[in-house]
Amino acid sequence: MFVSYPLDLQFISCMINKPSLFTSLSPALVHLYDVSNSIVVIIDVFRATSTIATALYNGAKSVIPVDSVSRCMELGRQIEGITAGERDGKIAEGLEYGNSPFEYPRDFIEGKTLVLTTTNGTRLLHMALEKGAREIITGSFPNLSAVCDHIIEMKKNVILGCAAWKDKVNMEDALFAGAVISRVREQFDINCDSSHIAEAMYEKGKKNLFAFVKKNNASHY
Amino acid sequence: MFVSYPLDLQFISCMINKPSLFTSLSPALVHLYDVSNSIVVIIDVFRATSTIATALYNGAKSVIPVDSVSRCMELGRQIEGITAGERDGKIAEGLEYGNSPFEYPRDFIEGKTLVLTTTNGTRLLHMALEKGAREIITGSFPNLSAVCDHIIEMKKNVILGCAAWKDKVNMEDALFAGAVISRVREQFDINCDSSHIAEAMYEKGKKNLFAFVKKNNASHY
Repeated sequence: MFVSYPLDLQFISCMINKPSLFTSLSPALVHLYDVSNSIVVIIDVFRATSTIATALYNGAKSVIPVDSVSRCMELGRQIEGITAGERDGKIAEGLEYGNSPFEYPRDFIEGKTLVLTTTNGTRLLHMALEKGAREIITGSFPNLSAVCDHIIEMKKNVILGCAAWKDKVNMEDALFAGAVISRVREQFDINCDSSHIAEAMYEKGKKNLFAFVKKNNASHY
Repeated sequence: MFVSYPLDLQFISCMINKPSLFTSLSPALVHLYDVSNSIVVIIDVFRATSTIATALYNGAKSVIPVDSVSRCMELGRQIEGITAGERDGKIAEGLEYGNSPFEYPRDFIEGKTLVLTTTNGTRLLHMALEKGAREIITGSFPNLSAVCDHIIEMKKNVILGCAAWKDKVNMEDALFAGAVISRVREQFDINCDSSHIAEAMYEKGKKNLFAFVKKNNASHY
């Protein structure tokens, strides 16, 4: 027997079946969300995930994020990779490069493996790993479209995880979360004030993101 | 000898001497700030600190915040106070009233003591107490001007502490933080992205806060 649902029920069914999207504005808040059942998007705009996207776009063979300088040095030696990372905004002692995207043009990074450690982004990535995330991807403005296309296609629950600055909420990671949300909001059930805050911030600043971040930024850059 | 500083040095000196203001968007982030050296403004717009301001405005003798239902009942019996509090948005079992400001008109609350416990606001208040805050005050839209006047007059460091919802950042507490910041920004050194986010949110929503919160709110109200 063919059962035809009225249109409004079909609409409700469609709503119920949407995957959820949450935003964690700091690694100190990640435990509040069901990481194990979600795709986690690690966001560290200044600058780990911007660098990862740029290095891969410029032909890096792979990028391996590690959580300590010593592990970075050890792995770099083993696989003859480029070791890079910063602590408190400076190249960490014992490593070769920093985490600015501008350090990784094609003629330098193509075909090489980058072993990267940073204060905030890599740490959050390992937290998501430990909590058994369904999938972990990294996001920043250089790969915004790729992130949005992927999470829409996967149809799974998503957590936008801002790396923040030593657990303090920051503007640029929240703005990227907002940029994602503004593009995918129809495909997800978004019942989360942090997401609404991030989207509202992005809508306010999107005409000139650089000026917006510069006007509102904190002293750590 | 009279020493005259150039104007720019006087300006720098003035900047250095301003007290600092930080915003903690969740109780789970409060440990990142120097509570012991600050006035902490507890913000729980829906609804503990709105109720506290309303009850005091309507002549309550005092309001005593406590951190558990059992303590609320015990103290209520001892001092013959009004016991009130909610858990998950409902009047807690064993207590008499909820935490809506509308439950405390002058003809009911005048001259009485209100013993109040709530899920989020009271908990944050006790966290600030334990960390040895210099002073603790409560803030919400009904006492916005009083809060701003007081922190300007005191000339001390300030932490705007959002009670949030079970540690998840919420819109209405962030908006109140933004409302305070928009009024006191010239008197404080505000080097904190959470504060900039809160202020930007408020500037975006201030023309119609009710509609803004309703449009962006989460499901817990």
